[in-house]
Amino acid sequence: MLRIILLLFAVANTAWALLSCEEMKGKIFRCGVYNLNTTDGVEYQTFCDMLTDGGGWTLVASIHENNAHDNGRCTVGDRWSSEQGNNELTNNGDGNWENLKTFGNVASATSDDFKSLAYFSIDDAKDIMIWQVPNNTPVSMWRSNSYLRYRTYGQFLSGLGGNLQNLFQSYYPIRQGVYTPGSDNGPSFPVKYDEGSPADALSHFGPESQPFLTAGYVQFRTVNGAQHINPICPGVKVDLTWGGCQHVCVGGSSFWGDVKNCGDFSGMTYSGYGTGTGWSVDKTLIESTFLIFYR
Amino acid sequence: MLRIILLLFAVANTAWALLSCEEMKGKIFRCGVYNLNTTDGVEYQTFCDMLTDGGGWTLVASIHENNAHDNGRCTVGDRWSSEQGNNELTNNGDGNWENLKTFGNVASATSDDFKSLAYFSIDDAKDIMIWQVPNNTPVSMWRSNSYLRYRTYGQFLSGLGGNLQNLFQSYYPIRQGVYTPGSDNGPSFPVKYDEGSPADALSHFGPESQPFLTAGYVQFRTVNGAQHINPICPGVKVDLTWGGCQHVCVGGSSFWGDVKNCGDFSGMTYSGYGTGTGWSVDKTLIESTFLIFYR
Amino acid sequence: MLRIILLLFAVANTAWALLSCEEMKGKIFRCGVYNLNTTDGVEYQTFCDMLTDGGGWTLVASIHENNAHDNGRCTVGDRWSSEQGNNELTNNGDGNWENLKTFGNVASATSDDFKSLAYFSIDDAKDIMIWQVPNNTPVSMWRSNSYLRYRTYGQFLSGLGGNLQNLFQSYYPIRQGVYTPGSDNGPSFPVKYDEGSPADALSHFGPESQPFLTAGYVQFRTVNGAQHINPICPGVKVDLTWGGCQHVCVGGSSFWGDVKNCGDFSGMTYSGYGTGTGWSVDKTLIESTFLIFYR
Repeated sequence: MLRIILLLFAVANTAWALLSCEEMKGKIFRCGVYNLNTTDGVEYQTFCDMLTDGGGWTLVASIHENNAHDNGRCTVGDRWSSEQGNNELTNNGDGNWENLKTFGNVASATSDDFKSLAYFSIDDAKDIMIWQVPNNTPVSMWRSNSYLRYRTYGQFLSGLGGNLQNLFQSYYPIRQGVYTPGSDNGPSFPVKYDEGSPADALSHFGPESQPFLTAGYVQFRTVNGAQHINPICPGVKVDLTWGGCQHVCVGGSSFWGDVKNCGDFSGMTYSGYGTGTGWSVDKTLIESTFLIFYR
Repeated sequence: MLRIILLLFAVANTAWALLSCEEMKGKIFRCGVYNLNTTDGVEYQTFCDMLTDGGGWTLVASIHENNAHDNGRCTVGDRWSSEQGNNELTNNGDGNWENLKTFGNVASATSDDFKSLAYFSIDDAKDIMIWQVPNNTPVSMWRSNSYLRYRTYGQFLSGLGGNLQNLFQSYYPIRQGVYTPGSDNGPSFPVKYDEGSPADALSHFGPESQPFLTAGYVQFRTVNGAQHINPICPGVKVDLTWGGCQHVCVGGSSFWGDVKNCGDFSGMTYSGYGTGTGWSVDKTLIESTFLIFYR
Repeated sequence: MLRIILLLFAVANTAWALLSCEEMKGKIFRCGVYNLNTTDGVEYQTFCDMLTDGGGWTLVASIHENNAHDNGRCTVGDRWSSEQGNNELTNNGDGNWENLKTFGNVASATSDDFKSLAYFSIDDAKDIMIWQVPNNTPVSMWRSNSYLRYRTYGQFLSGLGGNLQNLFQSYYPIRQGVYTPGSDNGPSFPVKYDEGSPADALSHFGPESQPFLTAGYVQFRTVNGAQHINPICPGVKVDLTWGGCQHVCVGGSSFWGDVKNCGDFSGMTYSGYGTGTGWSVDKTLIESTFLIFYR
């Protein structure tokens, strides 16, 4: 008898699966950490935002810069760019935008990179949401402490594979040196702000960068003047002719020639750490984490 | 009352433990991810193959090469050899074949190294099975996408500690520079093929290596001409007098003098990446992962 | 109906939470691995010691040195100091004493660094306990194989934030180059020994260090003669005028000028690996792990 119960437990997890926070939309109204499963029966926990626009948003990833100093360029902890050094031999980065690797923990998502199983196991996502949260904020304070919260609303992901892993693997690969600067930039999509505004978003970037940006968008897979790649530009789209997207977009390929452009936050400290001068973002942005959600 | 239920839950996990997929043999017939426990009560999930030869095979590890370029030799991600560089001071490798460290996630096992708690917590394994699967294959496609699947059948592990951690720690340690090339090679055991054949297995290795190999075996702890060590030769045994096992065997010690022999896939790209010429394996092999099972 | 059960399961975890091993004190008397939750609803497993002084001790961290050779100073695996190299640009270390990052696994805690969610999610701890256990000891043998076990008893943590993350973040930050050697050392607290004695504890440190130590204490955040920092001195307090605390204390900032002082075990191998001569600790200590508990 015990053996039968035991076997039932062993197989029960796939049958009782909640596959995303969206399945709780309209029924559960508390933001927090919930148990989800992949279609393959792997159990995991992640954060659900059950308030924004009716709720149902699943946290799938966080992009956190662990070391923006010159000795921390594409070193340990730079999992959204490369942990293998600033080196032309690994110039496509470590592949984590496109592969099935996972890392981090939901409770540590503002102190470390986080890539949930949700990033690739949810395959019917329609929109993304981004929260910009100060580093080392506990889960319960994420929402209230975000200085920017914004989301797409046009269901663009439905036509691009239903999640970011498919978007990058099948539509906009991270390959350095093969795309034409500007004209091969990926698409941008307008966002609505739930906290902050386009003007707020713009103000955190370096003054030299701002003239080349239009706030109120999210853009994917930009190509800079040296054919280097950034997967996501959070809160902005860049001018077609601009060669400096590494100063405002995040993640990406690893070989930038100039080591100051390598790392999870790419070239955001090019004119110094958190100075908010030249090409550098301000201290609020450099010491915060991007939380990425699907719905 | 709630407190009692709560306490029962806290202690229940060890009492209801399934310790391996073999305990489900003959009762469950679906391959997939299941919940297991260690004898110490630690819960984890791994993949069970419930079809091959009656089923009951527990996935315990995957060996994945994250960067076979010269800048990725024994760097971050080379956990089955060394993440500490190609350096004589860590010439026994990082010790993960012999210690209790774990890493990775079952759902990411073809995109990253995976060492399950099962690797050392199961201690009554009799045979091993290896699947060679293209990188980044989702769990549900592992079996059908494997280009080679083979397994020992003589219960060799019963006499060598019941798992690979004991085999390496107690019988065939990974120690560089102390063993005699060839004559101190560990034992080899014949395998049956469930997908592919010995001739298929042989065809993926470099043409310069093939004359020194006999396909249809798995061999442990080989010693090359420079007294370097590889823990496992997948699908082959090597000639007693051959000094080049680093070109066909995986994992191991970290200091190879020539950096081209360092890394999880050791010297498999010695004559170029995926060229299938000289000492290099072909592209199918270099871009695939070894999944290791116990039963 | 199934959907309702399913939703109940998804939200049940926070309601049924055991937040620490202390909640089982007086009810459960078996040492082992138990299921706990954070107040944010994140589930995890850790080890509970239910015997010492009535039990209720939660394992929150382990400090393990993965490579004490000169090529392993502040490299991959040195998470309690720095994985970014011995470099003045990251001279506060990687921040893991003060942030919300987690790493490792309870079952691997003597083969790898471990930082449990308990480290920062428990916020009402009063005392700490430390066990010194030989590396690669399985969970079930930790208690019996410890060569030293000791604990504070004065409830010092109640006044310092209720956990070590708060202690370091709010009261004794790890900041190199800003504190006065000796006079800015953090507080020390007396300990009782459950295994071993103050004399035993002292005997494992280098003979050159011993005259500067008083055994039978735990001290926090010491500042050495070059203004470098160590978070914890296990089993001893150091003389106010001593500039060499890096030879007996662990973890810390990353830039020591002399690379031999960098790493999770700091300068414990300064006069050679496990020699027990000069400033070096003996082989028992260098090949063991510090397990840290709260209650």
